[in-house]
Amino acid sequence: MTSHTVRKALAGFRWQGVDVLEYKAGDTPFRDVTRQVLFGDAAHAAQLRYFEIAANGYSTLERHRHTHAVMILRGAGRCLVGDAVFAVEPLDLVSVPPLTWHQFRADAQSPLGFLCMVDAQRDRPQMPTAAELQGLRKLPGVREFFESAD
Amino acid sequence: MTSHTVRKALAGFRWQGVDVLEYKAGDTPFRDVTRQVLFGDAAHAAQLRYFEIAANGYSTLERHRHTHAVMILRGAGRCLVGDAVFAVEPLDLVSVPPLTWHQFRADAQSPLGFLCMVDAQRDRPQMPTAAELQGLRKLPGVREFFESAD
Repeated sequence: MTSHTVRKALAGFRWQGVDVLEYKAGDTPFRDVTRQVLFGDAAHAAQLRYFEIAANGYSTLERHRHTHAVMILRGAGRCLVGDAVFAVEPLDLVSVPPLTWHQFRADAQSPLGFLCMVDAQRDRPQMPTAAELQGLRKLPGVREFFESAD
Repeated sequence: MTSHTVRKALAGFRWQGVDVLEYKAGDTPFRDVTRQVLFGDAAHAAQLRYFEIAANGYSTLERHRHTHAVMILRGAGRCLVGDAVFAVEPLDLVSVPPLTWHQFRADAQSPLGFLCMVDAQRDRPQMPTAAELQGLRKLPGVREFFESAD
């Protein structure tokens, strides 16, 4: 009971016994993102992960039926959720509803680290078609958001 | 979509649109604990709550089949999980397995605030019998833990 009951925080948003993983496999577009599964065993109906996006990095633009419940822990950045872009900073809460386009981007000078709670059982993400991407780019502020690190 | 997508953090570990609730109803013993449900709607298989225990306060000593996945966010304290007491500080992770006695206590000079992920569907907590409490008190460090705020 004692060995994994408490896992101490280490410097730099790392934890004892928690591996720093690649964000994703495959060819989905993203930049400079790491993933740590803080709680991921079958005892829980959901998982709690910590993602960290390096300065100027971004997560995949995607949507899916499962939801995300996010708490920002480190740094600063912005997120697209649905049709709007939001600035976020530590302890802010972000709700990503089902089938809603979303992407997180770190600021130019700062990483963006956040917790993400997600159901253990979940569907695969969908990527936008060219037409869907074009539609998103026409929304106020979204083109600038997509191009902010380019 | 925009109204509840991002809920900004406020001063003192409070959040826009999140009520500060009583920890529990009933006559279970606890002291100076508040509860905020950060993510609690039916879209998620789990809930994410923020609990804060004031200096010298403590949560209920209990156990249940459902698990807790905890990240400390604020202050300092200790927790009993199973048969051992652990000192905890911000960003430490605590796993409470099924049917395992647990209690959180804030230090004398500091609050203890933590996130707790829990399944949306869960069983009712059990309290220790007098004999079970006596057994716990015989474990190394546990009597001192129980008496630390008395």
